[in-house]
Amino acid sequence: MARRTGRRPGNPDTREAILASARDAFAERGFDGASIRTIAAGAGVDPALVHHYFGAKDKLFVAVMKVPFDPGELLPEIVAGGPGGVGERLVRTFLRLWDSPAGAAGVALLRSVLSNEWTARLMREFVTTQILRRVMSGLDLPAAEAPLRSSLVASQLVGLAVARYVLRVEPLASVPAEVAVAAIAPTVQRYLTGELTGVFDLAEAGERAIGGPPSA
Amino acid sequence: MARRTGRRPGNPDTREAILASARDAFAERGFDGASIRTIAAGAGVDPALVHHYFGAKDKLFVAVMKVPFDPGELLPEIVAGGPGGVGERLVRTFLRLWDSPAGAAGVALLRSVLSNEWTARLMREFVTTQILRRVMSGLDLPAAEAPLRSSLVASQLVGLAVARYVLRVEPLASVPAEVAVAAIAPTVQRYLTGELTGVFDLAEAGERAIGGPPSA
Repeated sequence: MARRTGRRPGNPDTREAILASARDAFAERGFDGASIRTIAAGAGVDPALVHHYFGAKDKLFVAVMKVPFDPGELLPEIVAGGPGGVGERLVRTFLRLWDSPAGAAGVALLRSVLSNEWTARLMREFVTTQILRRVMSGLDLPAAEAPLRSSLVASQLVGLAVARYVLRVEPLASVPAEVAVAAIAPTVQRYLTGELTGVFDLAEAGERAIGGPPSA
Repeated sequence: MARRTGRRPGNPDTREAILASARDAFAERGFDGASIRTIAAGAGVDPALVHHYFGAKDKLFVAVMKVPFDPGELLPEIVAGGPGGVGERLVRTFLRLWDSPAGAAGVALLRSVLSNEWTARLMREFVTTQILRRVMSGLDLPAAEAPLRSSLVASQLVGLAVARYVLRVEPLASVPAEVAVAAIAPTVQRYLTGELTGVFDLAEAGERAIGGPPSA
């Protein structure tokens, strides 16, 4: 393997070993359960070296997923404008990324996620802990409602990506991004902050009926 | 190949030849553009034999897609109840199919659709002409709005299927179907019959800006 120069620090073999160990750890234990110590042990290096190469655990997760953006930088501005327009800002940013040159990598990533259970686990964990949790934490909502609201947002956004960029269902595939924003932002806003009449009553009744909450 | 007995009529090789020819024709020319005559010619049989084996062209498309239901039988009851509850009836029926034993085949089909351009074309054509067109035709809406409304419905339903059954994003993957219906039916209802403020103005402006309507 050719030795890289430039902004990525360190020995490329060590770097790859850390990424491979991190990929396994995040898929097996989830983001919260995977520790830098375990990841370092899996790669046979000192934990300090993981910090030195990648910084904090969330940055390491971004590097593992090879996503062309850092949610830790992108999301604060989406949340900062207040809960009122958060759906619109989220959908607009989502489409801006997909419509950028990085979108082609997104299509490949989505295909891989949908055909491979291991990649699916990683992506589910990434979207939940790195994107939706950050968005939800900026909104003043009952904590118990956040997981279902998040997964509803995920259902609309992943469906938008699949319909517009993978299946290319017309005219949604060709309309300007602002048309899709105008149509879909109210859906995401409702899932994030709307009343969702009956949904949480039904969900509680379902939990009682099956003897406990669904596995998280 | 073992000779089938039971309700499927005719020589299995002939049957498979017709299905293969139909698959190509629907993917290349679309449902409306593919004629029974062309499909028969591709299979080297008489058009009357296609009718004899499969019935009308829409039944042939159902056989090609191997979907475990016939939209021609399922959709009239969804539409018949009137436009008011059509979103709810559509989401409920969608989830009933996916939660049935046929759902496992649905996951495999969805994975194949998302990884193979040819299957994607077929599925896009099937969903558009066999499902969404039938639903839209029962609603009293401007014809020009139907395609965009349909593709918005597709974005939410495909996203629901991917999030609940393929990625298994919790808690959406585990909640009772009625919870998902209560949450998602209003979205689908709005896409089908709601006002969609600004969407069609923006879409028209976009068409003028790029010198014509997006390719259909």
